[in-house]
Amino acid sequence: MLPLQEPLVASPSGQESRSRLGEGIRSDFPILHQTVHGDKQLIYFDNGATSQKPKQVLEALRAYNEGYNANVHRGVHYLAAKATSAYEDARDKVARLINAKSSREIVFTPNATAGLNLVAQSWGRSNLGPGDEVVVSVAEHHSNLVPWQMACQATGATLRVVPLTKDTQEIDMQALKDVLSEKTKIVALVYVSNMLGSILDVDFVAEETCKLCMQVGAKLLLDCSQAIPNMPVDVQTLGADWIVATGHKLCGPTGIGFLWGRSEVLEQMPPYLGGGEMIENVFLDHSTYAPPPSRFEPGTPAIAEAIGMGAAVDYISDLGLENIHSYEQELGGYLYEKLSSVPGVTIYGPPPEKRGSPLCSFNVEGVHATDLSTFLDFEGIAVRSGHHCTQPLHHHLGINASARASPYIYNTVGEVDTFVEELQNVLKFLK
Amino acid sequence: MLPLQEPLVASPSGQESRSRLGEGIRSDFPILHQTVHGDKQLIYFDNGATSQKPKQVLEALRAYNEGYNANVHRGVHYLAAKATSAYEDARDKVARLINAKSSREIVFTPNATAGLNLVAQSWGRSNLGPGDEVVVSVAEHHSNLVPWQMACQATGATLRVVPLTKDTQEIDMQALKDVLSEKTKIVALVYVSNMLGSILDVDFVAEETCKLCMQVGAKLLLDCSQAIPNMPVDVQTLGADWIVATGHKLCGPTGIGFLWGRSEVLEQMPPYLGGGEMIENVFLDHSTYAPPPSRFEPGTPAIAEAIGMGAAVDYISDLGLENIHSYEQELGGYLYEKLSSVPGVTIYGPPPEKRGSPLCSFNVEGVHATDLSTFLDFEGIAVRSGHHCTQPLHHHLGINASARASPYIYNTVGEVDTFVEELQNVLKFLK
Repeated sequence: MLPLQEPLVASPSGQESRSRLGEGIRSDFPILHQTVHGDKQLIYFDNGATSQKPKQVLEALRAYNEGYNANVHRGVHYLAAKATSAYEDARDKVARLINAKSSREIVFTPNATAGLNLVAQSWGRSNLGPGDEVVVSVAEHHSNLVPWQMACQATGATLRVVPLTKDTQEIDMQALKDVLSEKTKIVALVYVSNMLGSILDVDFVAEETCKLCMQVGAKLLLDCSQAIPNMPVDVQTLGADWIVATGHKLCGPTGIGFLWGRSEVLEQMPPYLGGGEMIENVFLDHSTYAPPPSRFEPGTPAIAEAIGMGAAVDYISDLGLENIHSYEQELGGYLYEKLSSVPGVTIYGPPPEKRGSPLCSFNVEGVHATDLSTFLDFEGIAVRSGHHCTQPLHHHLGINASARASPYIYNTVGEVDTFVEELQNVLKFLK
Repeated sequence: MLPLQEPLVASPSGQESRSRLGEGIRSDFPILHQTVHGDKQLIYFDNGATSQKPKQVLEALRAYNEGYNANVHRGVHYLAAKATSAYEDARDKVARLINAKSSREIVFTPNATAGLNLVAQSWGRSNLGPGDEVVVSVAEHHSNLVPWQMACQATGATLRVVPLTKDTQEIDMQALKDVLSEKTKIVALVYVSNMLGSILDVDFVAEETCKLCMQVGAKLLLDCSQAIPNMPVDVQTLGADWIVATGHKLCGPTGIGFLWGRSEVLEQMPPYLGGGEMIENVFLDHSTYAPPPSRFEPGTPAIAEAIGMGAAVDYISDLGLENIHSYEQELGGYLYEKLSSVPGVTIYGPPPEKRGSPLCSFNVEGVHATDLSTFLDFEGIAVRSGHHCTQPLHHHLGINASARASPYIYNTVGEVDTFVEELQNVLKFLK
């Protein structure tokens, strides 16, 4: 966990990596090569919920579990040393992925939700009080809304909610600007929406929002769960104080995510969960705590999962996040265009060029989203329906549910064609 | 997650399963068949820190990751339905292992530490106040001590600590009895100590302690992290209100553990982490919460890991927990006896017949524990040294560190012989 010296956010720009995306990497994902419901070739369009894992990640898990499974940090023996080294290597990989100044700024968490709760409970409970304001948007995933409701309830602070723009259904940056004041202690926003696909204006966040936050002394937390898998994220230019993301959405295992926080911010935060690993000295009447990141990693960590996430970071870094974003802009744009042309379809969120993810959430007039996804499933097409953990956003849009098709790096234009074709067949049946 | 109807705690009693333990199951654990530091055959005696995983568990992980990886609960498509079913099956398996009345009493947690913090934060913060007392023992792992220090600090409650008996170095049950009063709101104890190997007197817990707790209106929480892997635990006779355990110590993956709580107790507990999955309805200004166990499982869970833990539960259940306990009594007794005969050795904790785990923590006069474990490692023997996340217990025993040899179901008498022989060689060199 030394400060990182090398140039970061490695992003192979060559045509080679770009052209591998889609069909060229499908052989890395054994799960895609299956038929479901009899003879229906699987089309997996539920990547907003979780991505698949390439062979390289499964091999990293196998190598650990069969070769050097041991607990980390506390053992001097051969397997323990090897496991500790691999676990900390994974932290370095995550740090390089987001261009953190040091891997000590990376806290491994069970998932992104846990990272958001960590900030809300540790920083929130020790920094918020009556009269203080917490600013979120109406587009937040429940994981970045409920923890702040709880923190406000516990501390007496007030939650302020930024709406969407009427025209493009993005988080309204002017409304955000208007709500900020010296009362604002923290702004907690989704960076790429899991329902709208919308992305916060990067320049705005990096320059204006951050400047405004700094002027009023507010901290900035960004939920990057849907951003990190799909586009380059550089914490040194982003202007946030914390970001969170999750392994299982970026080709890694379940059970692991991470919180990045600026060193000087993490160091000021008290622990919120106690146990082994996070302590310095324990006496019967009190304890002293380890510095970050250990302070926030109590108990035996998700060792295999962190190592697996490290392998996933290698995988997406080798493909290049710029390449991934560019491929997805194309694929997502094509999906948006094809889907828009189906009669009765409403797609939520801004136009494709303002999106950070290739997902499309939509409804078809007169048809329930659940029926859509159920009948598409019979044809082998996996899309999600429901509120996508964004009930207030659905209320705001005047709907109860939507269907969501969310492709990823291994999906193809051909699959989009099949999806839209089958959707039209399903609609013939349902309408 | 229906109430379980079948007879529980399946424990094949036949001689066949018993005789398979040790040498007979080593082929299930590929990791054991390796040499380290050149040509030294690995002897893995660090199971108190983490156990190895059999092929059956690795196969369950592979089957999920390669075959039906999808997010759970929220999707209607083929893979999501299959993943949800396997995830909930794992909950049923854990419920059967400990004879829970219903699988709704099982909350999946990232590790045992998280389960203990859940009780301390959710139940603790809403039930403790100034004048109230929390009772722990001096033998607690930091994970069952630091969360209670934090809860007491947050609520104004007082922490009371039960010492060890002078003669056998067990938790002093008479002292526990003496400390209980109408001020006691919760008793939180380690069931099998990770340093002493001592086990709480089961009859005492089930009858006297529980009766006393009930008389004074106190709750009982047992940390079963070192118990569940080694002996039958039946929550319906144990008399506790909650227990916790962890997957990676019972042949399962890292990143997963569980909390069991009586339905009527869990139902009264508020959530302490917010996010997706744990809600019923979310509005901008407030939320309502799902019933347990969902209320305590925010965000995407450790799906693969829960399924892997389910396979591990199958594995140890097939061997039979009674058989495992009996094999370990024999192996642990042999280890204790051989180790005691080495000049200068002090073993901590009660005699073998009063132990719930075959581990031995020890020191050798004039030699530092870290030197011992380092030199044993050169011979391929993995033991742990340090405070084993029990600093107050070490202070209580007047030591700073100890070495710990902790065999498990795949270890053999022959390995114990080699360990003690190599220990003697190391001592010749070190002393």
